Amino acid sequence: MAGSARITALDVLDVRFPTSDQLDGSDAMNPEPDYSAAYVRLRTDAGDDADGHALTFTTGRGNDVQANAIAALAPYVVGRPVAQVCDDLGGFARALIHDPQLRWLGPEKGVIHMATGAVVNAAWDLAAKRAGKPVWRHLADMSPAELVAQIDFRWLSDALTPGEALDLLRRARAGRDERIATLLEHGYPAYTSTPGWLGYSDEKLARLARQAVADGFAQIKLKVGASVEDDVRRMRAARAAVGDDVRIAVDANQRWDVQPAIDWMRRLAPYDPYWIEEPTSPDDVLGHAAVRRALHPIKVATGEHGANRVVFKQLLQAGAVDIVQIDASRVGGINENLAILLLAAKFGVPVCPHAGGVGLCEMVQHLAMFDFVAVSATMRDRVIEYVDHLHEHFLHPARVLAGRYVAPAAPGLHAQMHPASLARYAYPAGPVWAGRA
Amino acid sequence: MAGSARITALDVLDVRFPTSDQLDGSDAMNPEPDYSAAYVRLRTDAGDDADGHALTFTTGRGNDVQANAIAALAPYVVGRPVAQVCDDLGGFARALIHDPQLRWLGPEKGVIHMATGAVVNAAWDLAAKRAGKPVWRHLADMSPAELVAQIDFRWLSDALTPGEALDLLRRARAGRDERIATLLEHGYPAYTSTPGWLGYSDEKLARLARQAVADGFAQIKLKVGASVEDDVRRMRAARAAVGDDVRIAVDANQRWDVQPAIDWMRRLAPYDPYWIEEPTSPDDVLGHAAVRRALHPIKVATGEHGANRVVFKQLLQAGAVDIVQIDASRVGGINENLAILLLAAKFGVPVCPHAGGVGLCEMVQHLAMFDFVAVSATMRDRVIEYVDHLHEHFLHPARVLAGRYVAPAAPGLHAQMHPASLARYAYPAGPVWAGRA
Repeated sequence: MAGSARITALDVLDVRFPTSDQLDGSDAMNPEPDYSAAYVRLRTDAGDDADGHALTFTTGRGNDVQANAIAALAPYVVGRPVAQVCDDLGGFARALIHDPQLRWLGPEKGVIHMATGAVVNAAWDLAAKRAGKPVWRHLADMSPAELVAQIDFRWLSDALTPGEALDLLRRARAGRDERIATLLEHGYPAYTSTPGWLGYSDEKLARLARQAVADGFAQIKLKVGASVEDDVRRMRAARAAVGDDVRIAVDANQRWDVQPAIDWMRRLAPYDPYWIEEPTSPDDVLGHAAVRRALHPIKVATGEHGANRVVFKQLLQAGAVDIVQIDASRVGGINENLAILLLAAKFGVPVCPHAGGVGLCEMVQHLAMFDFVAVSATMRDRVIEYVDHLHEHFLHPARVLAGRYVAPAAPGLHAQMHPASLARYAYPAGPVWAGRA
Repeated sequence: MAGSARITALDVLDVRFPTSDQLDGSDAMNPEPDYSAAYVRLRTDAGDDADGHALTFTTGRGNDVQANAIAALAPYVVGRPVAQVCDDLGGFARALIHDPQLRWLGPEKGVIHMATGAVVNAAWDLAAKRAGKPVWRHLADMSPAELVAQIDFRWLSDALTPGEALDLLRRARAGRDERIATLLEHGYPAYTSTPGWLGYSDEKLARLARQAVADGFAQIKLKVGASVEDDVRRMRAARAAVGDDVRIAVDANQRWDVQPAIDWMRRLAPYDPYWIEEPTSPDDVLGHAAVRRALHPIKVATGEHGANRVVFKQLLQAGAVDIVQIDASRVGGINENLAILLLAAKFGVPVCPHAGGVGLCEMVQHLAMFDFVAVSATMRDRVIEYVDHLHEHFLHPARVLAGRYVAPAAPGLHAQMHPASLARYAYPAGPVWAGRA
């Protein structure tokens, strides 16, 4: 039965958390987000417990649009042999992405691309569970040639060829076992955005910043961009709270045009911001390059809204970023993120994943850990974002101890949520939402 | 009643034409498109016949995803006073685009952005009908200040400020009345893509190319990118058919990486291609710039998949294009296309709209004609794409005579389809599709 098992269903759930009640997650462009998941589950007739779970993170309204787009992919998935999908995830991802009619809706960006990413990631969850490994280890155990086969190199060859990718991966084989041991023993560095939401008072900001340092974090992040006077005051308070040795990143969530970004950041420069994240439009490669030139040595970071590998390729080609921020649910799944990790390694730019949104920490940690083991082979200046909320809804929540992600051991991608959470926060019929209507 | 009228409904229809039967519209990335419309109708209680009609063009599968996204905007639209919407279309567009939760699904790209564009365009149809004017004339009769108020300048100020836009528009006031008279008398130049679909035989290609010249077209376009040997043969046949004085553009529909684009086009260069359209990823600003540098004097054209004004801004800043190809249904509606027209004028690059897909000719002609009257003030090296199919489904089909679009006189945007067509091609329940199931 196992050899002939097929994917029998693609279920989609609209799950929303009323985070706007507390202004958790509030920033200059997202004043009142309700952290949400367009959640997908691939079921099979393999007769085991291994379903494939993944999600697209959204901030509330529109989660139904995202869920609908995922559901529209069911005809491309249901009926496929499980082994065929899991043994050729690269081919599976390409088949979804290059459908000649669906691609008109992007191409490779926005709702349809995130839907593809969710389905592809659910297939990775399925494959890793069948292999009995967490995704980071499932990836790390692939050969360089197997990894290269995961990647769609279309539009990349002026920056990265399959041969170059293969060379990079082969060179990173040296020291692999030691790095796995290091990872298992010491975990992977995290930073926390918990103190810095825009909706928090200065007192709460300072208290949470001190707590972060006490908890072992060497970097925190503040949201900025609504009021420069407020930001100067908040940045000063945060710097006073954490001292000179803790990095403080700031995040404008795309709020500014190019010159305003430069002017605003010069006001904050006396408090030594480590990076400015999303200073302007996520599509504006040239704009980011201009901001970076003007603000050096303050680093420029972006990527959580980078639509696809072509955007990341250009950010690197143009010297527009010091930090590449991959996101687990924005691009076309793990396969496209592998391409982005390799591009970043080729250009020698560190990857510091975006996370925090529901399920993002759980998923993206695998990519950073795989990068350490098999691609960049270093943790230097690399940190994964962490926000301590909503993890209780997951079967295998991301764990951060003493400022470091613990390498997860359970098989899969870890986006799987508890059935009770899926039911309770179902939108609009779950009890949390029905009670508000 | 009229003054207090409100928008009472946002209806969405999934309309598909089985164009793949004949390979009309076939190209290197879209081998078998079914030209489709995610169609929107805004109804009011004004007691007149003026509904607002517009559509997002797609190529078949996924049209339901697009329609669903448009429907999700209903709560933002239904209940608004008609006069408030029509008197401040800029504010209306910004309210949709900057919704802090929905914008996560883009931002400003893909399904959610095209949905916004369709709704915004439907509001323009409504406004123009209430003004008793075709959209091009409704726009041309606005003052420079009114036009500037239509535009969202966020992320543009490093390339175009509101003050610069105002200056451009004021300078273009000179000669405006003469240009309106010219437009009404002589129309606007068109080119035809009818001969060059990839699925056509060489014989059909040559016959249609000769017919195009006989019909008065001074430019035709061929699809390329599937096989270089075939393309050389087809290009040679087309050149032989039309002679040396007719421009032949070629269109790769994103098929190539950067260096392959350059190599392939060098094979076609002996037959004097006028422009190469979409040589690579529509997101690849730097890639287009590299192709343009290498292929000069062959021109580089792109834009039909340009996700938003930030992409166009960069194409112009990077010197990546000789021709800007706006599309009526890809970006956030007429308002964003106004920004793109002004950017192109600022950089002195001609705009040659993409059209051909169902309803695109009908809609986009208004923008080119407005550009002639009030922005660039010239038709030099400017042509609107034309494909002669599916126009019979529209109340006011685009009309091309002797190779030129006739300036339309009927009020509105002209995306409105006959009720019988909407019913017949409704997917999946209309008779055309139900009969195939």
